[in-house]
Amino acid sequence: MPTISQKGQLMPQSPIRKLVPYAEKAYQEGKVVYHLNIGQPDIKTPEVALDAVKVHSLDILAYTRSEGSDGYRDKIAAYYNNHDIKVTKEEIIVTTGGSEALLFAFGSIMDTDDEIIIPEPFYANYNGFSTASGVNIVPVISKIEDNFALPPIEEFEKLITPKTKAILICNPGNPTGYLYSKEEIQKLAAIVKKHDLFLIADEVYREFAYDGVSHYSIMQEESIQEHAIMIDSVSKRYSMCGARIGCLVSKNKQIIATALKFAQARLSPPTLAQIASEAALQTPQSYFTDVIDEYVDRRDTLISELEKIEGVKVAKPKGAFYCIVELPVKNSDDFAQWLLENFDVNGETIMVAPAAGFYSTPGVGLNQIRIAYVLNKESLVKAVNILKEALKVYKD
Amino acid sequence: MPTISQKGQLMPQSPIRKLVPYAEKAYQEGKVVYHLNIGQPDIKTPEVALDAVKVHSLDILAYTRSEGSDGYRDKIAAYYNNHDIKVTKEEIIVTTGGSEALLFAFGSIMDTDDEIIIPEPFYANYNGFSTASGVNIVPVISKIEDNFALPPIEEFEKLITPKTKAILICNPGNPTGYLYSKEEIQKLAAIVKKHDLFLIADEVYREFAYDGVSHYSIMQEESIQEHAIMIDSVSKRYSMCGARIGCLVSKNKQIIATALKFAQARLSPPTLAQIASEAALQTPQSYFTDVIDEYVDRRDTLISELEKIEGVKVAKPKGAFYCIVELPVKNSDDFAQWLLENFDVNGETIMVAPAAGFYSTPGVGLNQIRIAYVLNKESLVKAVNILKEALKVYKD
Repeated sequence: MPTISQKGQLMPQSPIRKLVPYAEKAYQEGKVVYHLNIGQPDIKTPEVALDAVKVHSLDILAYTRSEGSDGYRDKIAAYYNNHDIKVTKEEIIVTTGGSEALLFAFGSIMDTDDEIIIPEPFYANYNGFSTASGVNIVPVISKIEDNFALPPIEEFEKLITPKTKAILICNPGNPTGYLYSKEEIQKLAAIVKKHDLFLIADEVYREFAYDGVSHYSIMQEESIQEHAIMIDSVSKRYSMCGARIGCLVSKNKQIIATALKFAQARLSPPTLAQIASEAALQTPQSYFTDVIDEYVDRRDTLISELEKIEGVKVAKPKGAFYCIVELPVKNSDDFAQWLLENFDVNGETIMVAPAAGFYSTPGVGLNQIRIAYVLNKESLVKAVNILKEALKVYKD
Repeated sequence: MPTISQKGQLMPQSPIRKLVPYAEKAYQEGKVVYHLNIGQPDIKTPEVALDAVKVHSLDILAYTRSEGSDGYRDKIAAYYNNHDIKVTKEEIIVTTGGSEALLFAFGSIMDTDDEIIIPEPFYANYNGFSTASGVNIVPVISKIEDNFALPPIEEFEKLITPKTKAILICNPGNPTGYLYSKEEIQKLAAIVKKHDLFLIADEVYREFAYDGVSHYSIMQEESIQEHAIMIDSVSKRYSMCGARIGCLVSKNKQIIATALKFAQARLSPPTLAQIASEAALQTPQSYFTDVIDEYVDRRDTLISELEKIEGVKVAKPKGAFYCIVELPVKNSDDFAQWLLENFDVNGETIMVAPAAGFYSTPGVGLNQIRIAYVLNKESLVKAVNILKEALKVYKD
């Protein structure tokens, strides 16, 4: 029998994936499972986006340009300009989700065994994209005590080698909910300039900035125009994860020309989803105001409920819709499985994401979980109560 | 300024891409350009597919499972079983076009510098997927004199090294139009078994088999169940290239488990396009009968018109909608550019794909072009006439 590749063996599984059979068993037993583990918002997609595909007038569902349709790129460029990001449509490549934008960025700037520095905990699929691209993640640890703020810039500097090609941040962060300040972005700008690196920012949660703080994009930092690569997506902004439309944005012409070659090889991003995404740009501001009010309300409820539990430590998120929670358990993998297999409060339990999968340093984050507050407030209160009751009886 | 990767520099451009500015100039000059260069069929997408997205009832455009929705995989499995391919839905991973299926297959079976043997001329984007995956294509030449039949199996055997992981065929072939016989597939089966290799077959044109000959899939060859990886797509079958829905099919459980990890990293294939693709499976057989009659008619017209031109050699295609044509010119790149820039018949000219981009052996195919017969018969006759007149006056 022929064998699979080493790369294929090394490809990581999602940190949640191994819990899925236990969740399925829990359903079969008739348990209600509150999903604190997923990034699929329960917020409705704007009707304007959903309706656009209902009235399409295509008679051939054809390819668009590899870089995305002109109409859609024109409108995203206008959207960015309204958000103080001065770009033209030639600086945008439409991709199949933010995922593909990351793959194009990695392929455009790194060869086998090159290195990319990422503050951890980080979005678990960065591991998958790195493995698929044959490159290595070098983690720099950020701490729950600091709300996962940018680690001291000297910590980055210590890790830079001739193989280092880029620093990658997620802002606001999944799984941390941390929103980088302008000053933090400027520190990163200084270091990428000094060492001639790229700075990739995954800004797919840009709209989800709370407490009156504005999001500061790496694209607003003019000193690093040749270094900055922004990754974006419609998935979270419009609660349309299933569209699979993202983009790669850069003012570096070589990056755009190179990423375009990757884009041409796969022909075109999905056409119907571009129609929906173009229409989504007409979403009224009130939609975002409502959504953000809802998330802030959920976050506040979640945090205050969590803080009532003895032995629980939580970083207060300033953006996105995740937070990392430290629990008085030794191994949150075991705990998460036990919650599904052996625990319930009146037939109800919770599914959480063990945080070790968001770290690449072995042994770190073992006592942490990620909670996504993509459930309504009432469910969140019930879910945190289940966590509280569970911690009373759980034995490591 | 930070530098792009070597991989990024090596990523090939589409063989047609450099002609695009000349085509645009021709439009600006008011010329009519007949496009013999592209694989975007002019055939209408079945209404059942286009209508399905018009009546969707989603209020959240959510992710589907990473391996594709259960409903869609159930129905594709049924479709294959109706076509004598015995597979279950667990043996199918839905991908974003055939392109992504190829990337998943390459990643699952090959590491950096591994080798894959492909009969040339081959689909140009195999070059891009190989470069992106860091692997090397080893070409084995097939000849216009043989209609691009399978090269002698000893030619493959000579090229096998410890780094060889797979043989890849496209059946029916783009750009050759060649349809492999059952005997040819069995020869390939014997060699992959003998050397413990994978056999990947890109079967996206399976429906387009002419002259009463049936398509024989590698999945029908039971002796290589653990070796066979089939790549498929809805793009050509239903003339819905813009859906970006394909799949990877294998009875090798390790391959499916590994490709699934690549699929999980990118979350999900596009949801709206899966709705359209699931509905497309209801397309009546009469649609295919009509489409195939149309293609056969076009092919016969094209070939008979081409054969009237002195010095032109053409391989008669038995499937897909391409053919390779040998011209009495030294360099078809220059000729293709000249056609757009300097030639017209009553304000009309043609755009063709120079064939060198479909070969990886340097210097081969320089006097060949690929013609896609995705235009109606009347346009094809006019286009071939333009080619004929052009050859009378063109000087190398």
